[in-house]
Amino acid sequence: MLPAGDHGQIVLALFIVLVAAKLAAELFERLRQPAVVGEILAGILIGPSVLSLVQPTQVLDALAEIGVIFLLFTVGLETRPSDIFQVGRTATMVAVLGVVVPFLAGWGLLTLWPGHSSIEAIFMGAAMVATSVGITARVLSGMGLITAQASRVIIAAAVIDDVIGLLVLAVVSSLARGSINYLNIGLIAGLASGFTLLVVLFGSRVVNRIKQPVKDLRIDHSLLVFALVLCFGLAAVASFIGIAGIVGGFLAGVALSEATDETRLHQQSQTLTEFTTPFFLVTIGMKLNLGIFLSSEVVTLSAVVIVLAIATKFIGCGLGAAWMGRKRAIQVGVGMIPRGEVGIVVAQIGLSLAVVGDEVYGVVLAMAVITTLAAPPFIKLAFAGEQTSIKSDRYDSELQEEIR
Amino acid sequence: MLPAGDHGQIVLALFIVLVAAKLAAELFERLRQPAVVGEILAGILIGPSVLSLVQPTQVLDALAEIGVIFLLFTVGLETRPSDIFQVGRTATMVAVLGVVVPFLAGWGLLTLWPGHSSIEAIFMGAAMVATSVGITARVLSGMGLITAQASRVIIAAAVIDDVIGLLVLAVVSSLARGSINYLNIGLIAGLASGFTLLVVLFGSRVVNRIKQPVKDLRIDHSLLVFALVLCFGLAAVASFIGIAGIVGGFLAGVALSEATDETRLHQQSQTLTEFTTPFFLVTIGMKLNLGIFLSSEVVTLSAVVIVLAIATKFIGCGLGAAWMGRKRAIQVGVGMIPRGEVGIVVAQIGLSLAVVGDEVYGVVLAMAVITTLAAPPFIKLAFAGEQTSIKSDRYDSELQEEIR
Repeated sequence: MLPAGDHGQIVLALFIVLVAAKLAAELFERLRQPAVVGEILAGILIGPSVLSLVQPTQVLDALAEIGVIFLLFTVGLETRPSDIFQVGRTATMVAVLGVVVPFLAGWGLLTLWPGHSSIEAIFMGAAMVATSVGITARVLSGMGLITAQASRVIIAAAVIDDVIGLLVLAVVSSLARGSINYLNIGLIAGLASGFTLLVVLFGSRVVNRIKQPVKDLRIDHSLLVFALVLCFGLAAVASFIGIAGIVGGFLAGVALSEATDETRLHQQSQTLTEFTTPFFLVTIGMKLNLGIFLSSEVVTLSAVVIVLAIATKFIGCGLGAAWMGRKRAIQVGVGMIPRGEVGIVVAQIGLSLAVVGDEVYGVVLAMAVITTLAAPPFIKLAFAGEQTSIKSDRYDSELQEEIR
Repeated sequence: MLPAGDHGQIVLALFIVLVAAKLAAELFERLRQPAVVGEILAGILIGPSVLSLVQPTQVLDALAEIGVIFLLFTVGLETRPSDIFQVGRTATMVAVLGVVVPFLAGWGLLTLWPGHSSIEAIFMGAAMVATSVGITARVLSGMGLITAQASRVIIAAAVIDDVIGLLVLAVVSSLARGSINYLNIGLIAGLASGFTLLVVLFGSRVVNRIKQPVKDLRIDHSLLVFALVLCFGLAAVASFIGIAGIVGGFLAGVALSEATDETRLHQQSQTLTEFTTPFFLVTIGMKLNLGIFLSSEVVTLSAVVIVLAIATKFIGCGLGAAWMGRKRAIQVGVGMIPRGEVGIVVAQIGLSLAVVGDEVYGVVLAMAVITTLAAPPFIKLAFAGEQTSIKSDRYDSELQEEIR
């Protein structure tokens, strides 16, 4: 029928994504595996590579972006600025070593491997740099460990790491155009650091001062509205100074964390995350084209890249956190492994600039997806036996209340 | 910077829509006007006609559709099947007269008005038929009157009206292709009525039986997940049998209303509605092209159509509710006036089938927008002095709690 049209297609796609993601999540929970892996595998299954029930569209992409922004916003709400300062030095060490070691490995590998240009080699290095904190955050918050010390280092390091990673990407993009634009790079570095420091240092204070006027507004749910505006506002600022939008969402959460402890905002933000995160996870899975693995050379290269990506991030970040003791260093190293959507973004930019071929694009995509798939079991293992925080008990009792 | 790209644009658009909608809502609340009118005017202001800050895109359209589905889902949650049965006979009378009178008026007008084909005349009749319950529901729930008797008649009548309206559209579409497909029309009529009756009669019972298995699921927020799946599942079913997706969302809410009274689902659904409804309201505003009103003939025709659209719906629906007494009949008549997105959908289909010209398209669009803009003040007036339900007090105390 006519009136259904586009909207019918969109609604059907939302329905299929939600059902597939949550059935897989339930199955993985029962197998004692992280639900997040199930939701990504659901994406591979329903996507173009296997069943082709749902195609990646602009709308699903946008919902995925909103999903990962809400996810990081919720993580930010649980992160107090004081927590970041507490782990700031370690996080910086973790981030820097976690960028340098994988970059050198990716660049070195493709320089030695026959048939690739030097720009492809540099690009591969850049693609191995940026950690996708979303996946790790989802696994840790599912385990009730999002406030553990190692978790805080991971999240703070991933924020710093994202800033460094996108600087590396800026350099690579300049190289691809034939020259390095030092001015541009310096500008982004300055803006990104300034923006992050500004929000972390003054965000809470500003929010505390604005609380009363927000309270006085006549519109319904004014605190939630204010939080949404701040979240998308800072995400837009982050995007336009050249860092990923999710950093803005995270910083908005951080700014609101201390002022909103006793309000319903945390529950509301969980509700929005629960609705939108499946689109983020399923979209990651949908973007894997299984067809590229018909070539044995691609398979070999992928395997080497994946092993290197996991090993170098683990070693680099683990070294950065070495003073925390062996167990904590392993937790941090493992938690920084997933590349997820950040790696995929790097791959897409490389392809669009025509500086990398389909082959390297496919390998980077596989690396991003496989590191994301492989990390959660290791994270669960590394964090096994850790004491669950009070937070998680609160979730549980809320859940009980909800489904009674 | 490159990585921002598309996502940066989307995030910025979300930010602008939210800020504009909520600033306007706040302003209108202070002027003691309904916030919903403010949000639609915000859409006109930031849209292509005036400031051009945001363009209608596929993504905003999808968020608008999700927004109106959540809005009707929330309305459904507050509507018990027993409430619909209670008002079933009146609602049917209201719906039928509210379809017949405006259709005859629209068709008659363009038949007499020079320069229009007979198919355009029939199309204009069809466009004047379908009530957009979303706007009225938003105004009434804002006033805490969503459970009042007249409100229940309006919402039930709008559901029936939507089914009839889309049948009329099916007939018109068949005519546009040169022949009436009676089989198709009969099929849609049967499916739509069957689907609605099925959910209203058995939905609550099924949900009550499924509650325990849902409770036993291991995934977080399993009741919310179940509700989302049901909402989009029924919306998809509605779209594919040829009625508007929002009917499915509404019916999902109705099915869940009795089983979830003591859970957090109602709050969670309000949160999702709060985030997504601004996109629905702003998108309606954005679609008004002010340029068409430079022609004086279009202005005259628009004025006549708007007056007829308001008068015929008011008279038709008011007559249908006459036995409820004068005050209630006026409330029902006024509440059925807005055409909103349903009228716009009719206009878009007519244009895409190339059976109506730009002029009639513009007039229909203006009619849909103006009836939507004009209705809320009349609704407020007609319902002034009604006793606010307990529901609204509960909202208020929740709001107090939230912003303390």
